[in-house]
Amino acid sequence: MIGYPNKKTAYKTSSEINYSRRGMSLEEDINDTNRYYLEADIAAVHKKPTPITIVNVDYKSRSTAKITEAYFQIPSTTDYNGVYRGQYLDFEAKETHNKTAFPLKIIHPHQLAHLSRVIKYGGIAFLIIRFVAHDETYLVWAKDLLDKIGKVKEKSIKYEWFRDNGILIPYNFAIKIDYLKVIDRLLDGGN
Amino acid sequence: MIGYPNKKTAYKTSSEINYSRRGMSLEEDINDTNRYYLEADIAAVHKKPTPITIVNVDYKSRSTAKITEAYFQIPSTTDYNGVYRGQYLDFEAKETHNKTAFPLKIIHPHQLAHLSRVIKYGGIAFLIIRFVAHDETYLVWAKDLLDKIGKVKEKSIKYEWFRDNGILIPYNFAIKIDYLKVIDRLLDGGN
Repeated sequence: MIGYPNKKTAYKTSSEINYSRRGMSLEEDINDTNRYYLEADIAAVHKKPTPITIVNVDYKSRSTAKITEAYFQIPSTTDYNGVYRGQYLDFEAKETHNKTAFPLKIIHPHQLAHLSRVIKYGGIAFLIIRFVAHDETYLVWAKDLLDKIGKVKEKSIKYEWFRDNGILIPYNFAIKIDYLKVIDRLLDGGN
Repeated sequence: MIGYPNKKTAYKTSSEINYSRRGMSLEEDINDTNRYYLEADIAAVHKKPTPITIVNVDYKSRSTAKITEAYFQIPSTTDYNGVYRGQYLDFEAKETHNKTAFPLKIIHPHQLAHLSRVIKYGGIAFLIIRFVAHDETYLVWAKDLLDKIGKVKEKSIKYEWFRDNGILIPYNFAIKIDYLKVIDRLLDGGN
């Protein structure tokens, strides 16, 4: 079974309503987009599986080993990476319901350290940040965000900073979050 | 908790003795090597977590959510990828106890398709194959293996083929399986 996102999870219970007009989480939109890129034979970008520590597995049934005890680990890298036009791409995707600022606590320090390494080793590192209340999704270069984090004293970065420094990715029904268009601009010499 | 391999698992029970002189599995050797590259600030290559489908999680204790029912998925990509010298690296690692041939069934067709895409999109795709009985570890370019698979009728490839077409990676105590030396040769114009 391949890890296609479960469409059934797109509609949440009242306590976790997704305020975006699409009713899809950012993760679902990006997984859809990556599947589009794969099927259109453009790029191979995948979400990494959630890291877990497996403690107990029940092998009673040979064909379907059942994991009966496992725990979530803190990820040591970002969620997404892959290859496009000969480039290594690496990014983290986060959404916030906060209207005025992006809370930094939702990105783990290990992930920022990883993005910093990716830049150093010559990969293309970025973040895709969605402000659900504004229904806006931005691509932000990891270098810009890391510089900004080094300068702010608060534990959040204002929404305006993303509006001024991020690249708005318009929602598209065929290619939900077409972030490779931004990468194309980078590779073709614009920004 | 970061996913460092558990050293306790290096010594197996009698039914699963590892015949390599190091008593370490290929996966453990590669994880050690990648950790060395990371600490030496050379490259960021990581093993992807095992993909699983989570069915039930017990949230009784807030700090340690316990997964109580989950199943293994078939991986849709290879186990390892990362960035080095501006290049996207992608590889699968497999070991066999077979003396005379490498059984193809231990590589999943999805993984071969993925390696083929990586080549097409300009990444560096390869496999690290260990013949435990010979205590030899080879790097094989994915292109060469895919070509060979297209030609053979058997469900295995002879050991001699790897000896003739692979690049032997000598075991090293500091950097267990120094595969980036082979990548350097590729990037610096040799092979």
